[in-house]
Amino acid sequence: MVVRLDTLVRYTSNENNHSESDVTLYSEEENTRGLYVHWVGITAEGEEGLTEEEISYIYKNMLFYILRRDRVFFGMYMKMQLYSSYLSTPSFTIRIALTLKGLDYEHKSVNLFKKEQFSPVYSPFLQNVEFLKINPMGYVPAIIDGDIVLADSFAILLYLEEMYPRHPLIPCDLAKRIVNYQAASIVTSSMQPLLRIPVMFYIEEKAGLDEKISWVHYYLGKCFAALETLLKDHAGKYATGDEIMLADVYLAPFLIGYPQQYNFDMSKFPLLSSLGDAYIKVPAIENAMPEKQPDFPIN
Amino acid sequence: MVVRLDTLVRYTSNENNHSESDVTLYSEEENTRGLYVHWVGITAEGEEGLTEEEISYIYKNMLFYILRRDRVFFGMYMKMQLYSSYLSTPSFTIRIALTLKGLDYEHKSVNLFKKEQFSPVYSPFLQNVEFLKINPMGYVPAIIDGDIVLADSFAILLYLEEMYPRHPLIPCDLAKRIVNYQAASIVTSSMQPLLRIPVMFYIEEKAGLDEKISWVHYYLGKCFAALETLLKDHAGKYATGDEIMLADVYLAPFLIGYPQQYNFDMSKFPLLSSLGDAYIKVPAIENAMPEKQPDFPIN
Repeated sequence: MVVRLDTLVRYTSNENNHSESDVTLYSEEENTRGLYVHWVGITAEGEEGLTEEEISYIYKNMLFYILRRDRVFFGMYMKMQLYSSYLSTPSFTIRIALTLKGLDYEHKSVNLFKKEQFSPVYSPFLQNVEFLKINPMGYVPAIIDGDIVLADSFAILLYLEEMYPRHPLIPCDLAKRIVNYQAASIVTSSMQPLLRIPVMFYIEEKAGLDEKISWVHYYLGKCFAALETLLKDHAGKYATGDEIMLADVYLAPFLIGYPQQYNFDMSKFPLLSSLGDAYIKVPAIENAMPEKQPDFPIN
Repeated sequence: MVVRLDTLVRYTSNENNHSESDVTLYSEEENTRGLYVHWVGITAEGEEGLTEEEISYIYKNMLFYILRRDRVFFGMYMKMQLYSSYLSTPSFTIRIALTLKGLDYEHKSVNLFKKEQFSPVYSPFLQNVEFLKINPMGYVPAIIDGDIVLADSFAILLYLEEMYPRHPLIPCDLAKRIVNYQAASIVTSSMQPLLRIPVMFYIEEKAGLDEKISWVHYYLGKCFAALETLLKDHAGKYATGDEIMLADVYLAPFLIGYPQQYNFDMSKFPLLSSLGDAYIKVPAIENAMPEKQPDFPIN
């Protein structure tokens, strides 16, 4: 991530306990971000108006400071924050993309079983905000990148692709590009939504465990069959050639471990099976795997 | 649509009954399309190797022909083809986008109740192909635009946006752009997939009619609440300003008639309600409504 001057996080200087409404985030220049300048009133006693957590964050991340009259400006580098869960396939997708693009990020675990997606989470200078203010859907993944707060994997990927051109995920070649769009869209709109944990819980509760398994097998089978057909004329080492592209970052979470977890027979899908084998050898994918994440349960 | 030289539909000249594998579609220049040149062997008897339907299609659409040795090249203008159903909200979305972009298209109705998505459909020069060859998922919408065959609404919209810049659906402004991505993504990955007809049939079959209604209300409520929050700082006359954008083409099908159809109370969503009121006054949306489509049942 390139460090550039961008956003001022402005605090009113005369209050010790500022509420969230006192914090205004605004951009000096829209398309640049990564470096924060924090403006705070300073008194004889020190950094008035900041919490201890914020002061500690500043000391850790400060690149420079400027004194001007009764204000001090702290120039800080803030990493992108990724709200993620090891249980979430689209979080897995975004972790792969961030790694491929060489973006350093802070992993913010959201424990879905503890319903943390509906609880306050700590984010510097946003105080302890409800996760619903980061993503009103209450789903992971979500990112905070400077003054950009964004959720939903497809939206995040389009944003990353535009802002961080390293390792493009959308190919220049039209035929390959639209196959990537279509494959990603099959995963995001026809597979992943129907295999979300709450949906599977609901099916099991209303119709029983066998029906849940049939449901998972039906949607995996339907989507895998379509993807196998769609990709057969485009695949190389990976889904649409010899580079990891959009289709791959969406497919990998469903091809690594997922079929085994649901005892799903992959023998009818030779292309997808070989993609799955190829993916586990890619370091960016291997490092993004659920069991490598800080929130993965040890026992 | 600009008429440009693009694709050669090549038939082998020595066979009367060519199978689908004899038909090769290829592009002369990748990013231009709209005008077809059809190459056919010609004999003393006339247009050998063409069906009557194809000959009739050529006569209707031919812009020019060129004779060269034993071949004749027919230059034809072919409209974009949209495979659509009045029952499908993403088909509605694509119809709005095509109209806004001023793209003339041929409406190919797919009757979902008659399972036509799994039956052969007529498409010039593709013979009667299984719809599954157009979209291996068996879902509408799908488009054929020259040599491009593409399905899934998000994929189609990204393609249209890149190829047909008239009435951009993705704003230049970064903040507005990502809100559009996120809103579109909420509809395509968290609302529409769970409200598909087969999913609702399944819930009704396994858990009863009341559960189906609760299911619809739950997902409409969850997504509408998130969208209301997401859009509140961005809305103008429409979802993210005073122009119809990506968010709007996705929202309109769920705000026009849909809540009434499921007896869903919109009073908690004043912004979305006002967007719904605004949409029905937009001719491109009004003309894309299910009841204006050729496949809408008369009785």
